Amino acid sequence: MMSKILVTGFDPFGGEPVNPAFEAVKLLPDEIAGATVVKLEIPTVFTRSATVVEEAMVREQPDYVLCIGQAGGRSALTVEKVAINLAEARIPDNDGEQPFDMPLREDGGTAYFATLPVKAMVRNINDHGIPAFMSYTAGTYVCNSIMYNVLYLIDRKFPGVKGGFIHVPYATAQGVGKPNGTPTMEIATMARGIEAAIEAAVSTETDATDILGATH
Amino acid sequence: MMSKILVTGFDPFGGEPVNPAFEAVKLLPDEIAGATVVKLEIPTVFTRSATVVEEAMVREQPDYVLCIGQAGGRSALTVEKVAINLAEARIPDNDGEQPFDMPLREDGGTAYFATLPVKAMVRNINDHGIPAFMSYTAGTYVCNSIMYNVLYLIDRKFPGVKGGFIHVPYATAQGVGKPNGTPTMEIATMARGIEAAIEAAVSTETDATDILGATH
Amino acid sequence: MMSKILVTGFDPFGGEPVNPAFEAVKLLPDEIAGATVVKLEIPTVFTRSATVVEEAMVREQPDYVLCIGQAGGRSALTVEKVAINLAEARIPDNDGEQPFDMPLREDGGTAYFATLPVKAMVRNINDHGIPAFMSYTAGTYVCNSIMYNVLYLIDRKFPGVKGGFIHVPYATAQGVGKPNGTPTMEIATMARGIEAAIEAAVSTETDATDILGATH
Amino acid sequence: MMSKILVTGFDPFGGEPVNPAFEAVKLLPDEIAGATVVKLEIPTVFTRSATVVEEAMVREQPDYVLCIGQAGGRSALTVEKVAINLAEARIPDNDGEQPFDMPLREDGGTAYFATLPVKAMVRNINDHGIPAFMSYTAGTYVCNSIMYNVLYLIDRKFPGVKGGFIHVPYATAQGVGKPNGTPTMEIATMARGIEAAIEAAVSTETDATDILGATH
Repeated sequence: MMSKILVTGFDPFGGEPVNPAFEAVKLLPDEIAGATVVKLEIPTVFTRSATVVEEAMVREQPDYVLCIGQAGGRSALTVEKVAINLAEARIPDNDGEQPFDMPLREDGGTAYFATLPVKAMVRNINDHGIPAFMSYTAGTYVCNSIMYNVLYLIDRKFPGVKGGFIHVPYATAQGVGKPNGTPTMEIATMARGIEAAIEAAVSTETDATDILGATH
Repeated sequence: MMSKILVTGFDPFGGEPVNPAFEAVKLLPDEIAGATVVKLEIPTVFTRSATVVEEAMVREQPDYVLCIGQAGGRSALTVEKVAINLAEARIPDNDGEQPFDMPLREDGGTAYFATLPVKAMVRNINDHGIPAFMSYTAGTYVCNSIMYNVLYLIDRKFPGVKGGFIHVPYATAQGVGKPNGTPTMEIATMARGIEAAIEAAVSTETDATDILGATH
Repeated sequence: MMSKILVTGFDPFGGEPVNPAFEAVKLLPDEIAGATVVKLEIPTVFTRSATVVEEAMVREQPDYVLCIGQAGGRSALTVEKVAINLAEARIPDNDGEQPFDMPLREDGGTAYFATLPVKAMVRNINDHGIPAFMSYTAGTYVCNSIMYNVLYLIDRKFPGVKGGFIHVPYATAQGVGKPNGTPTMEIATMARGIEAAIEAAVSTETDATDILGATH
Repeated sequence: MMSKILVTGFDPFGGEPVNPAFEAVKLLPDEIAGATVVKLEIPTVFTRSATVVEEAMVREQPDYVLCIGQAGGRSALTVEKVAINLAEARIPDNDGEQPFDMPLREDGGTAYFATLPVKAMVRNINDHGIPAFMSYTAGTYVCNSIMYNVLYLIDRKFPGVKGGFIHVPYATAQGVGKPNGTPTMEIATMARGIEAAIEAAVSTETDATDILGATH
């Protein structure tokens, strides 16, 4: 039987007409390395994004859940290692929520590590000629929030499902008007990178053993 | 009775004659805001650093433990919010250990949040005219390791003690020979910033409520 | 009669199999806004690049000369304003020349400003959704050298010809293995941007009057 | 007979209470390597700054003129190689002038190279443990303007005088409130670096032969 991966991207936010995260998801093929790809646009909202993803996990019963969000200013695709039980929002989300110093789940762990094979994903993106790095912080906004919620839900209700998160840079067109030095990436490139990550995710039993890590 | 804070800094590493982290610690006064300051140089070693700090915590019975390390490339003092249960070393430590994909404590939580009032510390450093930010990743090397171990030990053996970590940039003199664009800070400035952080730490019952957080 | 633009790109260099500058030039259409596009690969060599371009200028009698080179580390297309009479090479060129503290032309001016409408070019690249900036330094290597030589030749031998230079970032694939934070751009994006620049160059009599400039 | 160096720094600008450039100049000793140091605060104004410096050059008859300005965002002291005959102001100066696309001197050269021994200055700053680089663009605002005017005046009216310019980063205290990643330097460190640069300037007959230059 084919395996299935649920891939989410956030809806437009902050007055932007599109969100490159979901634009990249839309470009993915419907099948990658023998796995069915289910694409889901989710609201840029702390509370509702978790509900929407949980409903989709019940409905679709995916083997893998990969969420995509944007970290403007980063230069590469970054595969996230860890999500923390903290909401700290510099700006309100699309529902006007602006939590700070708040746990995402009162009964959740302080953090969860991604259960997808993150090193294999980084390596396969690079092997496709697209810059990628491991990241050890998914931030404190809705990106960290949805990654945390997915891993919490897997831990509580969906045993065996593998979950993770990838941050994408600003799209190239978003770079116009931003300060000189701001890195960008084409949305089509993001999509090819995410496809490579998914290919690794759905075909890797044991993660790669590259030594990544921070330098401090 | 006076309170007591244990402040650690790593010993020289990677062929450098001094480590700015401990050089800054050495410049601290012996008393800050009514708290006795105990300074401790610790080895840049995953395993032994934890042993040395635990022994000092037993011996000194501090009310606060603040560890200082260097994150070359950062531009400001960064007060760390969270330590994760992961060792991933790009280079061997001073004992030649190079763990990767390893938990720091088999029986530890996935992560611990700092128990020092991190926002008040960031604010007071800034109030003293020195750039400081909250950080949500302490890396994966000995800095994260000692922060994690201190918070683990507090959780298990030293209830009520408050612990945390501050990363310092490259010292100004270390900038010579590094690529153009590399930020640096004078060691004396680091010391003044750490002093401001300690002042906030030992006099703040409830943390500040500034909204910090990442922008993604 | 149709006008003609000569567009040059450097050949591969430093062990790389391709040079994104010329790869982008190769993707240009053969006609842009009514101007014939003549593409020329030139050697990454101080002396010979000038000879090769001068020969092409004699042979082709272009109305415009636009040279393309790479400035790894920049995030956007940068249209150069000025070339200086200085060769200062950190590494030898493809013929092993490594001049330093040397004027490019003993009898040349200290500098020449581009005679192409640089502001209109920056604006039109941006209008096509691609980040671009004016730059006030073309470096001190073969890029500055060929820009200087073209403007010197125009001044002495090809009155009325308009000349200029555009730097491109690292190509996306070149970002793999480079430090995290290194900006890149797809070669196809560079080509679209250069095409927009040429469109502005060959259809603009008077340059735009946007206020650009540095902030210091 | 002792030689004499005129050292200028701009006055406060853009609502800031002090300008680190002149604050650093004020910290210089009155004699460096046998040369008398004459310190001069000059207005952050295109036109008047040139007049004020010319008057001081007539009055003081210095052997050397070194101007200091700020380039916020740079990480190191940068000794400028070249000034260009262009005013392009993003914001009005302290007199409300905002020239753009304007030559600084109708009868001036397109550019002038610094006549101070710039490589020896970079090297001696580094030898004093302070990061410094050569720069090939002094911008397009009042910094480039005063450097250009000094070199123009030397060329026309003050033969044999040596002139140049050093850009300083943001002061450390200015980093508070600026984006994370913004490099800064202590004003006292700037002063020590400028002193080292002057020491090299007034004692070097022939410039150093380090290979500097850009990498593109």
